[in-house]
Amino acid sequence: MTSSESLGADHSGAEILDHKACDRLLESTSVGRVAFVADGEVIILPVNYRFHEGAIVFRTAVGAKLEAAARHAPMSFEIDGWDEETQTGWSVLVRGTSVDVLDEEDAEDLFHLGLRPWSNAADRRRWIRIRPDDISGRKIS
Amino acid sequence: MTSSESLGADHSGAEILDHKACDRLLESTSVGRVAFVADGEVIILPVNYRFHEGAIVFRTAVGAKLEAAARHAPMSFEIDGWDEETQTGWSVLVRGTSVDVLDEEDAEDLFHLGLRPWSNAADRRRWIRIRPDDISGRKIS
Repeated sequence: MTSSESLGADHSGAEILDHKACDRLLESTSVGRVAFVADGEVIILPVNYRFHEGAIVFRTAVGAKLEAAARHAPMSFEIDGWDEETQTGWSVLVRGTSVDVLDEEDAEDLFHLGLRPWSNAADRRRWIRIRPDDISGRKIS
Repeated sequence: MTSSESLGADHSGAEILDHKACDRLLESTSVGRVAFVADGEVIILPVNYRFHEGAIVFRTAVGAKLEAAARHAPMSFEIDGWDEETQTGWSVLVRGTSVDVLDEEDAEDLFHLGLRPWSNAADRRRWIRIRPDDISGRKIS
């Protein structure tokens, strides 16, 4: 990344990434983590995903993720990359609301993205979309 | 990992890792992500950490993380590792409660772990400990 993608530093000293840099990182990564609250606990689960039309989409089976989505619950998504040797890294956080994709045409459209779950594809027929309220990124270099 | 570390499969078809395998992964990794709720939003932030005496510890400056910890809020922690080519991976989730380490002797003890924040070490004087209620791990192979 070039310094032109930085918008200055946050309170912790990390550089703030601009919107374009965040989008590029979201487009070029395939595994991230979703986090949401279930039964008063914070759950963090890795997902393979696509960044499609400005939203995060991933496939899931029935379970805690789908239940959170069906509630239109706050759900956030994070990707990051690190180099331990140089102690440098970046992260992008998408804060938003989860939506269970129920519309068949919409789901059909998402199937054409070619996103295949890594396990139990047969059971992971449902899609969840995280509609971003905010996308932010930081870099330590 | 060997198959002896697996406790069977979860509802999504991923293998469940046993307690020892989770501990080993927590001991051998240095960057993970904490998630917590702030102002009704779910925040996920990467941290470099240590797994010390059965708890996750990391350093922080004043900010959202410290405020959550000071409230003794639910805070979870996740590590994972992936190989895109083989579509295999693992993850460990620590669900717990965050505690701001205020006891000076305790904080002094943690300083001896040699954990250095990657940015703004000077400002990151405070320690947060996540006391685990539950540690679980999964593997897709």
